[in-house]
Amino acid sequence: MKKTKVQLHCPMPKLDFDIITLGHGSGGVLTNKLLDEVVFELLQNDTLDKRHDGATLSYDGPVAFTTDSFVVSPVFFPGGNIGELAVNGTVNDLAMCGAIPQHLSLAFIVEEGLKMAEFWDVLVGVKEACATAEVKIVTGDTKVVERGKGDKIFVNTSGIGQLHPKAAIASQRIQPGDKVLVSGPLATHGIAIMAQREGLEFENNIESDTQSLHHLTLPLLDEFGDQVRFFRDPTRGGLGTVLTETARDTQLGITIEQADLPIQEQVGALCEVLGLDPLYVANEGLFMAVVAPEVAEKAVALMRQREGGQKAAIIGSVTEEHPGKAILRSGIGGRRVINMLVGEQLPRIC
Amino acid sequence: MKKTKVQLHCPMPKLDFDIITLGHGSGGVLTNKLLDEVVFELLQNDTLDKRHDGATLSYDGPVAFTTDSFVVSPVFFPGGNIGELAVNGTVNDLAMCGAIPQHLSLAFIVEEGLKMAEFWDVLVGVKEACATAEVKIVTGDTKVVERGKGDKIFVNTSGIGQLHPKAAIASQRIQPGDKVLVSGPLATHGIAIMAQREGLEFENNIESDTQSLHHLTLPLLDEFGDQVRFFRDPTRGGLGTVLTETARDTQLGITIEQADLPIQEQVGALCEVLGLDPLYVANEGLFMAVVAPEVAEKAVALMRQREGGQKAAIIGSVTEEHPGKAILRSGIGGRRVINMLVGEQLPRIC
Repeated sequence: MKKTKVQLHCPMPKLDFDIITLGHGSGGVLTNKLLDEVVFELLQNDTLDKRHDGATLSYDGPVAFTTDSFVVSPVFFPGGNIGELAVNGTVNDLAMCGAIPQHLSLAFIVEEGLKMAEFWDVLVGVKEACATAEVKIVTGDTKVVERGKGDKIFVNTSGIGQLHPKAAIASQRIQPGDKVLVSGPLATHGIAIMAQREGLEFENNIESDTQSLHHLTLPLLDEFGDQVRFFRDPTRGGLGTVLTETARDTQLGITIEQADLPIQEQVGALCEVLGLDPLYVANEGLFMAVVAPEVAEKAVALMRQREGGQKAAIIGSVTEEHPGKAILRSGIGGRRVINMLVGEQLPRIC
Repeated sequence: MKKTKVQLHCPMPKLDFDIITLGHGSGGVLTNKLLDEVVFELLQNDTLDKRHDGATLSYDGPVAFTTDSFVVSPVFFPGGNIGELAVNGTVNDLAMCGAIPQHLSLAFIVEEGLKMAEFWDVLVGVKEACATAEVKIVTGDTKVVERGKGDKIFVNTSGIGQLHPKAAIASQRIQPGDKVLVSGPLATHGIAIMAQREGLEFENNIESDTQSLHHLTLPLLDEFGDQVRFFRDPTRGGLGTVLTETARDTQLGITIEQADLPIQEQVGALCEVLGLDPLYVANEGLFMAVVAPEVAEKAVALMRQREGGQKAAIIGSVTEEHPGKAILRSGIGGRRVINMLVGEQLPRIC
């Protein structure tokens, strides 16, 4: 169901060091070695190759600009790694603005002692995700902190992309009667990570849904233009938090049909085992769209034809009733208010 | 000598929490509270206030794009804090590309348990540096990691700025006969931090030189256009590393006169005490410029009239001799090759 990832064959070059040390963050000889022999060698492109303090790019008109830091633990998880997640996460934030993702920055904070082989695998994750999403790393930074002052590796990506000419994504454009869609099944990323943390990963084959989403959002904008009112990807805090925020920001009501929420059977079962509500579990390859009612069915049909959108569904509607609140309606007619996530059920999920 | 900083009176709002917890990174209720009552409240501007996954901006033509993570320890140091450093660092990378700094992203990785008062002081540092530099924070992110998995706070900023219309900054444009300038005295940031780490801060009044530099670079471009060949700010690795890289990249020689290197007396003395070579100590409010010989004196005169540039000086020349090497000439005629920094003398200086 996931978008086919570009899989690269990238054997690690022979190096005369096998762990990252403080010297690799010095700005001096070892930093240059790490950049020349590893980072620039793997991620090369015309802009990055200039190696100035910043990249020179050119835009004509409106762009989106976004940033995200990634601190997921463990760094390697079923279905991906922190490098892939960092690219997809920022690509998706751009997609949610109605933009065409183009250029990314990449900044590492490495804990001294990280194995070079692990750093390489993260970098290959970055490169594969960039290839799949058709974006470029154009500038970057590497810092190293002492052992015990970080946790293997943290990654920040920031991104820029031109707005799609037909995009008019804004919560203020949401109207009563609009339909609420999701592009795929809920809670997959969070449960893949939790299963691994709890040592349950061998009893199931749940993989993170990490993937780039503009292969779905851009065709929706091509086809339906400003009848697409709003996009949002429910990462930390889950779909429940995004629904609550959207109801609050629009001062309209949202009603969701529990029976229409797509969820993989194994994921649903693990949510029960772990005592987690899938509405609050993080997703990394899923978005919510609010669209005009007359295009809702067509939008779902369009998504279902594409990789990563096969399980797209209409899950609810925007209403004038219960303004500012999102309500979940169960199969047997029960109703409950969806609240924002309180506290933290899954720290460091992204 | 430093540029007059905008000093804001920003008392911390009354909050019902006094430390940052994992819940503040959840994406849920506590994250919203921290953003609404603290971050957005303090840093507000039209773009940030939209609170979407990314900011929508508009550019017409070439821009520079850059990123930097800041892990300086301690977070508060004489003359500044990590928030101020993070803004100035990225503003300066844009300035070094010949750009007019405009828009910044701001991403925090906070260690659980950070005192809210400290977080507030970092944020005020961000706001003051933005006000001084006349740039805006337009998008951001906050993650929290468990105690012992970070170190108080790490900050990433990325930035975008339109290129100055007369800018043509590229090491390939450097020619034999060009003059090498610096905008101020060496090694001040690194020594301020080292003095604090060594408990020597009460015996001197050395402050970090952290400041934005486009108030100097843009007038140089206005006045001298493409006779300005190259800018570079010697942060980690110091001026020595930047000179070495420039000689390597151009395959020209650079000769520096030791007697012409500006350095504060106290800084020079502390370098001796601490056994550090000022050529390799980090700077955060200083740049090297390479300019055509006919404008070198005028460029220095222009910088000296401005805050932050009063100690600007010509320190050497580009030569056809010793291609690929930077040479330091002492007052009594001795010559030594400047090498790139080996190892790490000052970890986490920025």
